[in-house]
Amino acid sequence: MNSRERSIAEGILLTDQYQLTMAQLYYRMGMHEKMAQFDHFFRSYPDYGQHKAGYCVNAGLEWLLDWMEGLQIREEEISYLRSQTGSRGEPVFDEDFLSWLKSSPPFANLTMKAIPEGRVVHPDVPLTTVQGPLAWAQILETSLLNHLNFQTLIATKASRIHHSGGKGLLLEFGLRRGPEKGANAGTRAALIGGADFSSNVGASHILGIEPKGTHAHSMVQVFLALGGSELDAFRAYADVYPDDCLLLVDTVDTLESGIPNAIKVFEELKQKGHQPVGIRLDSGDLAFLSIQARKMLDEAGFEDTIIVLSNQLDELVLWQILTQIRKESECCAVDPDRVIDSLVYGVGTRLITSQGHAALDGVYKLVAIRENAEWVPAIKISENPAKVPNPGHKHVWRAYDRRGRATVDILSLEDEDPREMDELVLHHPAEHAVFRILQQSDVDHIEPLLEEVWVDGEVVIEIPPLERLRERRLDDVSKLDPGVCRLMNPHIYHVSLTEKLWNLKRDLIERLD
Amino acid sequence: MNSRERSIAEGILLTDQYQLTMAQLYYRMGMHEKMAQFDHFFRSYPDYGQHKAGYCVNAGLEWLLDWMEGLQIREEEISYLRSQTGSRGEPVFDEDFLSWLKSSPPFANLTMKAIPEGRVVHPDVPLTTVQGPLAWAQILETSLLNHLNFQTLIATKASRIHHSGGKGLLLEFGLRRGPEKGANAGTRAALIGGADFSSNVGASHILGIEPKGTHAHSMVQVFLALGGSELDAFRAYADVYPDDCLLLVDTVDTLESGIPNAIKVFEELKQKGHQPVGIRLDSGDLAFLSIQARKMLDEAGFEDTIIVLSNQLDELVLWQILTQIRKESECCAVDPDRVIDSLVYGVGTRLITSQGHAALDGVYKLVAIRENAEWVPAIKISENPAKVPNPGHKHVWRAYDRRGRATVDILSLEDEDPREMDELVLHHPAEHAVFRILQQSDVDHIEPLLEEVWVDGEVVIEIPPLERLRERRLDDVSKLDPGVCRLMNPHIYHVSLTEKLWNLKRDLIERLD
Repeated sequence: MNSRERSIAEGILLTDQYQLTMAQLYYRMGMHEKMAQFDHFFRSYPDYGQHKAGYCVNAGLEWLLDWMEGLQIREEEISYLRSQTGSRGEPVFDEDFLSWLKSSPPFANLTMKAIPEGRVVHPDVPLTTVQGPLAWAQILETSLLNHLNFQTLIATKASRIHHSGGKGLLLEFGLRRGPEKGANAGTRAALIGGADFSSNVGASHILGIEPKGTHAHSMVQVFLALGGSELDAFRAYADVYPDDCLLLVDTVDTLESGIPNAIKVFEELKQKGHQPVGIRLDSGDLAFLSIQARKMLDEAGFEDTIIVLSNQLDELVLWQILTQIRKESECCAVDPDRVIDSLVYGVGTRLITSQGHAALDGVYKLVAIRENAEWVPAIKISENPAKVPNPGHKHVWRAYDRRGRATVDILSLEDEDPREMDELVLHHPAEHAVFRILQQSDVDHIEPLLEEVWVDGEVVIEIPPLERLRERRLDDVSKLDPGVCRLMNPHIYHVSLTEKLWNLKRDLIERLD
Repeated sequence: MNSRERSIAEGILLTDQYQLTMAQLYYRMGMHEKMAQFDHFFRSYPDYGQHKAGYCVNAGLEWLLDWMEGLQIREEEISYLRSQTGSRGEPVFDEDFLSWLKSSPPFANLTMKAIPEGRVVHPDVPLTTVQGPLAWAQILETSLLNHLNFQTLIATKASRIHHSGGKGLLLEFGLRRGPEKGANAGTRAALIGGADFSSNVGASHILGIEPKGTHAHSMVQVFLALGGSELDAFRAYADVYPDDCLLLVDTVDTLESGIPNAIKVFEELKQKGHQPVGIRLDSGDLAFLSIQARKMLDEAGFEDTIIVLSNQLDELVLWQILTQIRKESECCAVDPDRVIDSLVYGVGTRLITSQGHAALDGVYKLVAIRENAEWVPAIKISENPAKVPNPGHKHVWRAYDRRGRATVDILSLEDEDPREMDELVLHHPAEHAVFRILQQSDVDHIEPLLEEVWVDGEVVIEIPPLERLRERRLDDVSKLDPGVCRLMNPHIYHVSLTEKLWNLKRDLIERLD
């Protein structure tokens, strides 16, 4: 794909064919300007097989807004649509529709609300709501899901890996195994969700984060093939990067060659007044080798060096490595906390691909359409109750208990404000008989989650820097019950409907039965 | 990411930081122009958990070449590198290196050979070989792997799904759940590997394939919410697309409402001289519903209509659906072949994410470096024998038996030609004791697989149209043993080293022990 092709493939045509044919149908029926509301939400947490998420981290919004803002409909795109033919050779799209499409500014008269990026989010809660002319709100579906599903998936995985690794810095290393150009979105999502740095130079640059890296085995191999040694390679690296000297020690033999050679070079650096950074381990029993490496480095007087681990790491592997270090260190007369506190994690493939669960099931559903100055709720009748989207215009709220813990996300109708209710009757979104009553006196505070991000063809928020998104994520995760955060069988966070919304949903289901 | 940021993030900075710091080290040591060879290969077939691939479909090369060809190093990128600072605040990159980088045309003096896209490929076989100045060959690594790993992964999944579905057309529907902009690469790979069409408008356009689609549930919901009926929605669709009328029948009730309403509309279309296309089923027991739908459509005289299935399909689900149709049709007095022959598959999430195995483990390894006019093989010593890359310059060959079946891929040294050997001593790539002898008389023919694609800074092949890549794939798959193609526990296709290459590898391992 060359750059001209890229600009075509990533503009208005970054959509499914049926969005355009439906838009034409609405145009033909005179329904294209009818106001409609769509909700974007996901149905279930990522389930990685042996383990499962209990929360997600919302991400992707800024790049979606960039896409919407940058969208132009050019003659080339219209010509292409004009050239499409149906089964009898007749044009798929008529001239009147194409003229309308070309002259209609994309996403004008459309209002989008969203839960801010970096916030913790849960299933069935609208993360994004779109209200606008039916044709344009429909066309937006594919690109919205494409931008938001992937980044939320990766940000969620990053948060899990980050918390599993404890205090250790998390470096994102996935570009080479990531999904082609989508890897840049993956890097961004990882940096929002829990990665401290990334090796991806371009993505780091545009996000204002310093890229990180060490060196590859190939560097040592070059020296070996040219008749030199691992020590020569390390010395060369230390020469060029005396104050950033981080050495990969497993090209020849980690304990017999790599670490001893690294220590030699570190001693030379120290004599010249430099502070060595540390080593990287990329193979073998990483827990055992971390203990041995820590011991050898400490004995040589390099207590401040770090140990970077890489090689197919994820949240479970990190958990296992830390557990093993705690068990095994004492036999080796090493303080396990010293080992663990010096660890840094380089995580590639399993982060950028969300190993075990490769797609968030985010959907974009019609929930209401405006007719005769009234909003009419919409529903897909054949769904089982668990899958019926919550109808109509809604607010989304998060309630915190007296300990400051997030305790429930509440969906209400637009004219309701749970902050003004003495007691909250909270209904399970699908089970008829399940509800509970929350007294206002048990609530510390309730905050609204959605904010307007796009109004009448324009972005209306100040785009926050990445650092702000990370603060939101850290803050939200710190307010979750620890059971919700555990890697396996997490507690189910409550998402509830107000009595009024539940009654509307029940009536609608019953009426249509 | 706006378009300026995109151009920055997807150019020369689409790489890992360590590629640039290593390049500077080579520059500083005067080694940057030394000729090196790297091999790109993958180590193992995708393993999806319950099932596993026995072959892969090579894809991604054209878009990698586009990236290489379009690469420019601009002042903005140099300025950014200049601004990077190390731990003491000193610049990471020195001016002399940056001048060299800026003035050195990317990938000049570099030769790349590759197995053509669409060909069936196997582990340990170099799919791409790069020979060029060390610094540039090193910098290429990340982008090469980023472009090739993902498309080969998805093309492989598409081939599995295609063959599992039998003769039915395969439509790729994954854009909304795909990995952000990488989804376009996924669509391309799917179309190479086995998808006949895609719903992705932009990617289809630039690839010269007609996009396909039906309509969404939301279209029916709009009519329902406005006081109309499913039948009204279907009639509207038939009005606008009378010769391309494919109706989604599960918004209300598939058997009680959707199919009967579709049949009514089809009868109206028929009276007006139009040929209805068919229906789409997106929920429920797709095998049972396909049988019932076929029966109802046939009884109404619409024997030529198709039935599009969608909803979390993959190779196993299709296998199960076809098996169930074969078992269940007779009880319903329906010819199972009639049902099956009318099926079309719309596959989204599980294709574009390679459900079950989300990353191909392709690597890029230094295999030789040129010193004193001689190529010196390179090896990473600490690897277990199974992971030691095959050293030095190699040819790759494929031998076919007398039945025309592909029987073994052979790696030889560059000066060897297996076509000229009376008997071929073929060694297992890792197991010392395992070899077999293939008589030339048992061989129908042997073909070389690698071809030059990039020489001295330029693409040197005519880029074939997508159709040609699909022909290659179909032709190659047809020459595989059926046991290699089966979904579960496939036969292991042989990949072997010639005696001479094996001896070199063994000597090298022994010498370094």
